[in-house]
Amino acid sequence: MLTAHTIKILQSLDKKKFRQKYNLFLVEGNKIISELPNSNFKIKEIFSTDPKNLVCKDVEITQISENELKKISFLRNPKDSIAVCELLEEPQFEDKDFQLVLDGIQDPGNLGTIIRLADWFGIEQIICSEDTVDFYNPKVIQATMGSFLRVNMVYCNLTEYLSTTENTNVGTDMEGENIYQFEKPKKINLILGNEGNGMRDETEQFLHKRISIPRFGKSQSTESLNVSMAAGIILGQLFKV
Amino acid sequence: MLTAHTIKILQSLDKKKFRQKYNLFLVEGNKIISELPNSNFKIKEIFSTDPKNLVCKDVEITQISENELKKISFLRNPKDSIAVCELLEEPQFEDKDFQLVLDGIQDPGNLGTIIRLADWFGIEQIICSEDTVDFYNPKVIQATMGSFLRVNMVYCNLTEYLSTTENTNVGTDMEGENIYQFEKPKKINLILGNEGNGMRDETEQFLHKRISIPRFGKSQSTESLNVSMAAGIILGQLFKV
Repeated sequence: MLTAHTIKILQSLDKKKFRQKYNLFLVEGNKIISELPNSNFKIKEIFSTDPKNLVCKDVEITQISENELKKISFLRNPKDSIAVCELLEEPQFEDKDFQLVLDGIQDPGNLGTIIRLADWFGIEQIICSEDTVDFYNPKVIQATMGSFLRVNMVYCNLTEYLSTTENTNVGTDMEGENIYQFEKPKKINLILGNEGNGMRDETEQFLHKRISIPRFGKSQSTESLNVSMAAGIILGQLFKV
Repeated sequence: MLTAHTIKILQSLDKKKFRQKYNLFLVEGNKIISELPNSNFKIKEIFSTDPKNLVCKDVEITQISENELKKISFLRNPKDSIAVCELLEEPQFEDKDFQLVLDGIQDPGNLGTIIRLADWFGIEQIICSEDTVDFYNPKVIQATMGSFLRVNMVYCNLTEYLSTTENTNVGTDMEGENIYQFEKPKKINLILGNEGNGMRDETEQFLHKRISIPRFGKSQSTESLNVSMAAGIILGQLFKV
């Protein structure tokens, strides 16, 4: 049984303000929930219509009805279970040899896709400007398909960060070096800018190298690629073996 | 002014059945509508809140209110104008040297993204199984960002088609050849399967070559890439110069 009070709190967790107030966020679906115990994330409680199929030791599991699940799920088609998890403490971080840096990515689907890409390519850390969409946003968590468990997410003042990092800062630019000729630096920050406006001027000033994906279609009307697709194509090229 | 009858017809065009019955589909937004006269598509009529900004000769433009636009738009945030266009006649088609072949892609966002990718890479034609989502679906048209104007879409019986094409049929397979070592055949059909089930057995039997994108992340829990992202990474590699 879910109390009205609990429902109200859980429903509020689609907003960053309330996630931070309660220090909680939601993870949906048995498959991903089962991976939580092997991650840095702490589960506070699980609500499930199907607890038998959940392997999570030492966690309180409350059986709920399909109707109750609908009330607390952020999915159009709710799955079987919802885990209420604690936010991670702000991490101390050190640069990794291959990082993504996000400057104001706004769309939750794009951030989720980029986290999923990072996981695929074994990129362990993503540095985000403070105004990048919150990765605890339920739409982001969902779009990552569980990959948020394996990628360290850091939010910080980008200008400060970029002025001190020793990685080579690489950004995309229409006039940049063709990615097919580009030689990957040993330690690299691949910087991806906002969907509409690209990266900020303050970020651009810290670029060491600029790269571009050549367009093979001949029409001038063709829109540039979506930021997550561009990221996928660039990573596909930089990780080439 | 929009009559109730017109509104009803336009609203019905989110369903394939009604698009085929009326032989019509919708294109939204001045930017893409302005490109229609240079394409194969015929505009029947335009409804616009802002006709002054539209450059479309010889087409009847009806000024409507913001409220009327909301009623006939399929977008959450309707733009300025909606063009009512005629479906193309079923094309006679000939194989091109580089084609995509879609076997049961269901998600309109994925199809739209794949059409946009095709346009970026200058791929002129996509062959679809009859159960692939209809590209006139308003969500597909939207996701293409205008690229549907430049890519020839063919729906046909795939088994029949694949048994006669002279292109090399290449599909993705976990056990396939690493895309970074793969040599692109001169005439190629890159086959992409359904989001959940991959390609059908009947399709697979026509494969000449199998390729795979190596995963660099080490976790076995990492989900495979979404079909449109996989397509982007593969195309990025095959078009390499």
